[in-house]
Amino acid sequence: MKPKVNQAGPTPADSSGSDLHLELSDGPGGRRGALMRALREAVRTGRLTPGTRLPPYRSLATDLGLARNTVAEAYAELVAEGWLTARQGSGTRVAHRAEPPSPQRPRKPTTPSRPRRPAYDLVQGTPDASAFPRTAWIAATRRALTAAPHEAFGPGDPRGRPELRRAVAEYLARARGVRADPQRIVICSGFAGALRLLGRVLDGTVAVESYGLGFHRSLLTAAGLATATLPIDEHGARVDRLRETRARTVLLTPAHQFPTGGPLQPARRAALVDWAVEEDGLVLEDDYDGEFRYDRQPVGAVQGLDPERVVYIGSVSKSLSPALRLGWMVLPGHLVDAVLAVKGERESWASALEQLALADFIASGSYDRHVRRMRRHYRRRRDRLVAVLAERAPHVRITGVAAGLHAVLGLPPGTERAVVRAAAWQGLAVEGLELYRHGEATGVPDDGLVVGYGTPPEHAFAGALDALCQALPPSS
Amino acid sequence: MKPKVNQAGPTPADSSGSDLHLELSDGPGGRRGALMRALREAVRTGRLTPGTRLPPYRSLATDLGLARNTVAEAYAELVAEGWLTARQGSGTRVAHRAEPPSPQRPRKPTTPSRPRRPAYDLVQGTPDASAFPRTAWIAATRRALTAAPHEAFGPGDPRGRPELRRAVAEYLARARGVRADPQRIVICSGFAGALRLLGRVLDGTVAVESYGLGFHRSLLTAAGLATATLPIDEHGARVDRLRETRARTVLLTPAHQFPTGGPLQPARRAALVDWAVEEDGLVLEDDYDGEFRYDRQPVGAVQGLDPERVVYIGSVSKSLSPALRLGWMVLPGHLVDAVLAVKGERESWASALEQLALADFIASGSYDRHVRRMRRHYRRRRDRLVAVLAERAPHVRITGVAAGLHAVLGLPPGTERAVVRAAAWQGLAVEGLELYRHGEATGVPDDGLVVGYGTPPEHAFAGALDALCQALPPSS
Repeated sequence: MKPKVNQAGPTPADSSGSDLHLELSDGPGGRRGALMRALREAVRTGRLTPGTRLPPYRSLATDLGLARNTVAEAYAELVAEGWLTARQGSGTRVAHRAEPPSPQRPRKPTTPSRPRRPAYDLVQGTPDASAFPRTAWIAATRRALTAAPHEAFGPGDPRGRPELRRAVAEYLARARGVRADPQRIVICSGFAGALRLLGRVLDGTVAVESYGLGFHRSLLTAAGLATATLPIDEHGARVDRLRETRARTVLLTPAHQFPTGGPLQPARRAALVDWAVEEDGLVLEDDYDGEFRYDRQPVGAVQGLDPERVVYIGSVSKSLSPALRLGWMVLPGHLVDAVLAVKGERESWASALEQLALADFIASGSYDRHVRRMRRHYRRRRDRLVAVLAERAPHVRITGVAAGLHAVLGLPPGTERAVVRAAAWQGLAVEGLELYRHGEATGVPDDGLVVGYGTPPEHAFAGALDALCQALPPSS
Repeated sequence: MKPKVNQAGPTPADSSGSDLHLELSDGPGGRRGALMRALREAVRTGRLTPGTRLPPYRSLATDLGLARNTVAEAYAELVAEGWLTARQGSGTRVAHRAEPPSPQRPRKPTTPSRPRRPAYDLVQGTPDASAFPRTAWIAATRRALTAAPHEAFGPGDPRGRPELRRAVAEYLARARGVRADPQRIVICSGFAGALRLLGRVLDGTVAVESYGLGFHRSLLTAAGLATATLPIDEHGARVDRLRETRARTVLLTPAHQFPTGGPLQPARRAALVDWAVEEDGLVLEDDYDGEFRYDRQPVGAVQGLDPERVVYIGSVSKSLSPALRLGWMVLPGHLVDAVLAVKGERESWASALEQLALADFIASGSYDRHVRRMRRHYRRRRDRLVAVLAERAPHVRITGVAAGLHAVLGLPPGTERAVVRAAAWQGLAVEGLELYRHGEATGVPDDGLVVGYGTPPEHAFAGALDALCQALPPSS
């Protein structure tokens, strides 16, 4: 159905070429001279960098409205002059030669280079990146994008793709005991993304556990909310002291207190929901690693006890990869519209295509298989940590339950900073407990290490454990 | 390397099963009775929805520490009771029966259903979603994820993947005349994502064009910035009036004024850079559809004139799909650290895996091929629009140059709202120009339609044009 009216100028070349922006100016040598000057200028100023492939001369000729010979001759002369190289099968490229100095191009990088990576990494927060299920993920992407309706490639619904909300609802109900209705799920880019959105919906004071990620507290503060600290002990957060904080919202890690590692005691789970009912309070349940429990079935989500008082928040950052930037909130009915209002008319963050891939990954059973595989993997890691400590540092105590991707090692009083420094000397990155302390706590070691045993690739784990043991203080 | 110490409890099942959260309580019937009660409860409360597949009895037995027979018998009895169904090859699933009423489950959806889609859509802003290059994108994903280093599956660098920054730098330099150094590129989730980050770095007043997206202005205001309006005329923004606004930053669409369609005149491009040098000003260059020019080679980016005074911002939202949420900023050297500081230590939004896929998509030439194919596609669309109007509504004038994915149709004075309403009656969604007007302008029709000819799938385009012509006012 080619139209008869041809309002536009020269016919664009076919799609087999590539685009090259050039401004031809008048001067000696006619069109060929102008083209050569423009190409030399683009190479000289560094805009076209060595190795850049130029369009085939046919397509550039059509794009610029020049004769093919003109472009072919200009290319040939610039090859002869050393600006370009031409090789059979590789096309015409900008020559690899010393880049000319240019005032526009700073000699040193504008950002300082990051500190060199240590040899071993036991910093908590990252799953074993070498265990990402590449093949299964690629297959899910292929199936999902092949089957997707056209509208999936248009602007995204801020609630998230319906396919993903259905898959997440089914999974969370089955595996985590969440009462999940796809209508109440909002997809977001990880836990931080959820907290940023909720921060714009909530008001007043939010209570946070006395041990936790300072980053989460900062996000709440940045959203203009006040925060109060709720003490923790060996049975989890002291929910009996919620009323003192005057907070109407509380952010908790009930399945596995972060980072100290205790699950919230059953009586306290009940007391938490009672508080929410009596005070019209809201619980933000951060279920960051709820899938990974090694000594028994995981404790179900608190959300299952009262879906109208609890926002359940999860993500794939620990279970699959933090590189994906996908998470979810299961919201009480009365908060759905408010969260969508702050999200805006269209999805601004989470890729719809990756949402479709994850939906397929979950619905096809690949997610369950991966979680169950990683559960064995991390459990073996934790068992090895326990075994090595029992043998080489029996005076160091592991706190918390057998769960998650990290453990806290209690250290002799006053030794934490020295141990972190000693670890650095061993080429081991690991964090002290004080980084996570924001207030009062009992039943938690004053000095400790947060050991992310999930982080290293398999081949580096033994070395990381060895470096850890070298850094630990000797038995006194 | 199975460790000798086995600190944790029951051995988890192999990874072939799936997870099912159940809390077994004491009561009659022993373990089997407890399991049946827990399963009935999960179905009755709606936590396990009809069709949900239960784990194979072997894996559930291992997970719960029960005998296989106990689980197999419980499954069989619940099938007999009608709670579950068992079919060869499909496993055991929750039966499809009328869902029981539940007080926790609201009868009507908590969010109002969206208004029904009109039959035809000429609302600007979206590329033809049916033209997404699925096969090439899947192939790029496969290649990129197969080749990626393990660290790509860990936490992301806030600057973005180096592979993508290199590919974008090469492409922008070649195709858009941008002076792009990968060290100065920061990846973000689309134009809005860039503006949100810049809003936290800039201060003072930002001048915006008198026609544009209200959403962009709102993002600046939400970041605490003041905005001033810069008039436009048929030659683009009146940069000669920048000093009056007292703004130190200006947000412009130089390649194709949005939505009125004129490129910024060459003399004004020079005057803009002069202003920036003299007043220590900053230009935010929104190059939202710079790849799509049909009557000549696209005008190069203003950024090429002075990379230290211009932030170049682009994305794949028009060229590929807004579903991807990927864009980029090319920053002056002095802004790189400030933007990275507000982004934080880790990438919170853009998926590293999709960044890798896009890097491969660009570097392999698929992006150039797609852009060139879509350029022909949209050019044909625009030509058809021009031809249809010439025949059926010759009194309606198209403003702006032959470029982009939309055109502005000038309407007889006082008719705009009536035309938009008439279009709705024809089942056509299209927007009036007044939605985009924020201030003074000359050379722009007072009444007009913004026609997104790129939006409809191919099969719906003729119908959309017909509905449009039906809605236009008759020649007077």
